[in-house]
This record gives sequence, C-alpha cells and structure tokens, in this order.
Amino acid sequence: MPSKDPTAIASGKRSELTLLARIRDRAAHFSKRNSSLRLGIGDDCALLRLSPGEELAVTTDLSVAGRHFQLHWHPAQAIGHRTLARGLSDLAAMGARPVAAFLSLGLPGGLTGSWLDQFLDGLFALAEAYSVPLAGGDLSESPIAVADIVLTGAVRRGKALLRSGAHPDDLLYVTGTLGGAAAALARLKRLAKTTSGARSLPGRLERSLAPHLYPQPRVAQGLWLARKPLATAAIDLSDGLSTDLAHLCQESAVAAEIDADALPVDAAATLAEALHGGEDYELLFTAAPSARIPRSIAGVPVTRIGRILRVRGRPQIALITARGSEPLRPHGWEHFS
Amino acid sequence: MPSKDPTAIASGKRSELTLLARIRDRAAHFSKRNSSLRLGIGDDCALLRLSPGEELAVTTDLSVAGRHFQLHWHPAQAIGHRTLARGLSDLAAMGARPVAAFLSLGLPGGLTGSWLDQFLDGLFALAEAYSVPLAGGDLSESPIAVADIVLTGAVRRGKALLRSGAHPDDLLYVTGTLGGAAAALARLKRLAKTTSGARSLPGRLERSLAPHLYPQPRVAQGLWLARKPLATAAIDLSDGLSTDLAHLCQESAVAAEIDADALPVDAAATLAEALHGGEDYELLFTAAPSARIPRSIAGVPVTRIGRILRVRGRPQIALITARGSEPLRPHGWEHFS
Repeated sequence: MPSKDPTAIASGKRSELTLLARIRDRAAHFSKRNSSLRLGIGDDCALLRLSPGEELAVTTDLSVAGRHFQLHWHPAQAIGHRTLARGLSDLAAMGARPVAAFLSLGLPGGLTGSWLDQFLDGLFALAEAYSVPLAGGDLSESPIAVADIVLTGAVRRGKALLRSGAHPDDLLYVTGTLGGAAAALARLKRLAKTTSGARSLPGRLERSLAPHLYPQPRVAQGLWLARKPLATAAIDLSDGLSTDLAHLCQESAVAAEIDADALPVDAAATLAEALHGGEDYELLFTAAPSARIPRSIAGVPVTRIGRILRVRGRPQIALITARGSEPLRPHGWEHFS
Repeated sequence: MPSKDPTAIASGKRSELTLLARIRDRAAHFSKRNSSLRLGIGDDCALLRLSPGEELAVTTDLSVAGRHFQLHWHPAQAIGHRTLARGLSDLAAMGARPVAAFLSLGLPGGLTGSWLDQFLDGLFALAEAYSVPLAGGDLSESPIAVADIVLTGAVRRGKALLRSGAHPDDLLYVTGTLGGAAAALARLKRLAKTTSGARSLPGRLERSLAPHLYPQPRVAQGLWLARKPLATAAIDLSDGLSTDLAHLCQESAVAAEIDADALPVDAAATLAEALHGGEDYELLFTAAPSARIPRSIAGVPVTRIGRILRVRGRPQIALITARGSEPLRPHGWEHFS
C-alpha cells in the first residue's frame, strides 16, 4: 500500500483505489498511536524510528487459501485475526514489542466486498488489542486468496529471546495449554462436512472453536521474559510442540526430554494433539534451573514440562511416560507435504 | 523462513526443509556482509540494528503469477530479479540504503526444482549487486506462484525523500529513459504468441528485452539525492509516469505540467509507452528551481521534464505539446481491472 494511493486524479483506477482508501482509512486510526511509526501508508515506504539501544525484529508469514485457511470453513474475521496472530506470535517469541504491521493481500475479485471488510474487522481488532498500526503493504488481484503479514518489533539490543540459547540442564516451560487449537480444528472439520463450516456457526459454537479461530499471541509473556531476563531460549508453538522443540534443539545444539504427565493438555484435546497439533501459539522457553519462573505470567499459566539435555549422537527428543522413555519425532505442520 | 529450520530431528518434513536449507545456504553467503543485519534466517524473527540517527524504511511488493509475471513467458531468473527490483526501487525512491530483504514464497509443487533455483539465481544476483542480504521470509505450497518481497533500508532521520514535499514552481526531473520496459513487454507478448516466450530466447534477444526483464533500480541515484539533499519529493516509476506523477501530486497537494518534447523516450518506445508504461523503475523527483541538478547521477542521465504548479480546483496534470496543453490522465497499471 505505500506505493498506491487514492487520488482524485486517478479516476481510471477507481476499483483498486477504492479498496486502498478503505484500508488506509481504517489503518489511519491506529497510526497516530505508535511513537515508533513516523510515516505510514501513502509513500513508497513506511518509516520506523527506534529508541537508542533498540534493535528491530522482522518476521513474515504467508497464508494461502486452501493451505492455511479454508474460505468455506473459516469466518473472514477469523482469517484476518489468524493472519496477524501468526506474525505477532513470532514477535512474542523474540520478546519484542510490536511496532508496525504490513499486509500484502492477493484477492480474487469476488472477495473485495464484505469478505474483505470482515477480514479487516478481524485483523484490526487484534491490531488494536496490541496497539500495532498497519503501516503499509500491497494489494493485487489474484486467482486465489493469499495474505502475507509482516511484523516489525523493537527489542533491547542483545536482549532478544533466541532459539539458540538453551543449555544442557535448563528446564523447559510452556505457557497456556496445548492441543486446543488442533482439537478445535478437528471439530471444525467435522462440522464442515455437514454444514457450511464456521461461516454460519451460532455464536456459542464459534466461541468453543476460539482456540483455533482466534488464538491469542503471547506478546505480554514474551516481553516479560525478555525484560527480566529469565529465559535462555524461546520459540512459539506454531507447527506443534514436537516440531518446534526440534527447531529449538537444533539451533541450540542440545537434546531434550518431555514429561508426558506434566503437559498442560487442553481439556478438549488428546495427548497427541498437545504433542503434535500446531497453531496453539503458546511460548515454549527454557530457563536455568536456578531461575525462579512464576506459575503464571500476565494472567497466563506457565508449566514446567521437561528439561534440556546434552546431545549424544544426533539431537533427539524423548517423551517420558509411565512406560518409560520413547523418542518423540516431529509430526507437526508440513508445508510441502 | 525465520520460523522454519532444516534439522536432523525433523526427518518427517524433508521436502520443505530441503527447500529451506537450499535457500538458507545461499542466503548465508550474504548475511555476513551487512553490518546492520544482526541475525538472519533461522530464528522466529531476523534482527536489524541501525546506526544512531537512522530510521528504517519498509516496503512490501506482492507478485502474483498471471498478474505480475507469466510462467510461460518469463525466464525464472527474470522473475526473481524483477521481484527484488520492485522492492529495491521503493527504497531508492526514499533515498534509503538497502539493509535486508525478506521473501515469502508460495509455489506449486512443480516449481520447487530447477525453476526455484533459477528464480533464486536472478534474485541473488541482484541482491549481490546491492549488498542486500536475504534475512528471512516464509515458504508454502500454493496452487499458484506468489512472491511477496519485503525490503528494509536505512535513511538518516528526517532525510527520506517523500512524495509529499513538492512545492509549486519546483522543477520535475526523471532519471534514465522512459517507456523501454513497456516496449520490451509488448515485444515479448508478440513473441509469446509464436514461440515459448522468453523462456527459450537466444541471449541476444533476451538482452534486448532487458528493460522489461531486468530493470535496474536507481538505488545509487536515490541515495545521492537524499544525501545532498537536493530533491523536495520523489517516487519511483512502477505504475507509469502519468499514474505515479498523479500520486506525487496528490500527496504534495500540487498540480504539474510535463513538456512532451523534453521526455527522454526510450529509443524503442512510443510517447504513449513513455507516459503510461509502467515498470521502468526510474526515479521521478522534484527540486527547487535554484537547485543545481547534474545531467547525470552515478552514471545515469537526469532530464528535466516539467514543473510543479499550484492546484486550481482538482489537482491536474497537463501535457504540453506543439499543439498546446492537454490534460494527462493516469493510464498506468491497474491491479484490480
């Protein structure tokens, strides 16, 4: 959007410009509130200004219709919410304060009316909750709906939570509960076979699917952990515990073991959903054994679920159950399956 | 890509991880060279660090198969080059020094082999020319090919070239020549009807299509203009002179007139292609009448093409020809047509 602008001159480009004007108007409401955003939508680039001693965290997340969301299942508000939540969750995992979001949107012509309005409703509601302005992006017609979200955030120099900082003997923690998003997705899939999915769900049912439809990124928790600083490493659970813990272990060159009994499995979920279901967007983090980790951070419970081990041979993750120890292989989200 | 990582643990995700490993290996070559990039691919976010007194310019540009490029016409290298060139050109128009690029790529399974390698060849060749590392992004399977490029750049605080700074009586300048990209695109379209387009063109012919296939963003020229500072406003010519000048006039609340005879029309192009053809990626800028603008900047010619006027009624652009003055309406690129 920085490169395009509604203008009285450009009457030949009415349809695109009308869309951009709608998005720009809604975005303008937020732009004034964030002191790090010096220039938002309307120029070739947005301009961000950090405080001395801060560095900028940047992440992009691509959502594709049919892969990350289903137009015939998902309410447009939920798609907008989930698009932004993915990016905010990456900032949370670095302990970064959200500064500005950018949205590149490719849409079929048929989705530029009320669908787009509802998509923006969902996106801006979450943006408002975290005071993150929409500072730019791009818009194009596309045969399929695609949304690439870019999040920028500020973090004190050298204080970002990295995946690479875990040490042997560190303890392993997770925020919130696990598997709720996967369980809700499974329920939504069953509903979709018999109805029109969640697009026409009664409010009560839609609320019960909230762990999937409206996940809450753990921005406040990430900020708290980075400020203390207490965590030695962190990652957000987007692909599933088994997969994301594997990423953390790989980057830190360590192994890990998880206590199955300790896992905060969501009331609606199975152990398998807690281990492998993605999109919970909780934070997985490590801390030294001596660190005093509270039982909850900013109102969200924190649970100790295992420990970091020295690597013997190939890095491995073990699951400890009443039957003993077994290897835990990644079975999370696969983008090219 | 920050959120995904090749790991020995994650053997179940081989295909995606193999792709990511290929991209990460190629990106690693550049990461070490840019002092503003503290952390590249491999974590939840990349980390950028600016010098005191700098602010960060951010732009995103979405390219969609069938809209911005044609898989059956365009060599994959050209698609990679053009994807990055769009973003670099936005930085050039702000006078920003490129810091890091991020690429979100959605690809059908059939394009993840040699097509992707060639796409990356084109993208990394241009990235190397401007010392801009690939610092992150995302990767997903997609029914159609989409590429969203994010560029970040550094600019001295308060020194960015904005669209909004043009004043009445300022003179209007453009770098390079105009219409060459549109003329080459027209030639490519004719070729595509009889052959397989540029995918199998002889080298000589492909070189003659370079203004379309391999446009050169005016990064050095933008940096020079911002450093002096000489320009009062700037925009890059992505949508075409008539459309982009309208954007500049709208943001500056001014009108403008162009001298048709003064336009540096590319030798292969018509006047209409110079006025309305997009994707030349030259810089259009304004400067006070007293400013001494050289005839060339960093080896690229600069031409005075008109002047900025006070708005009378609706903002308008006039084209001055031997027949007199006529309104110039925007006929550039339309994303939702």
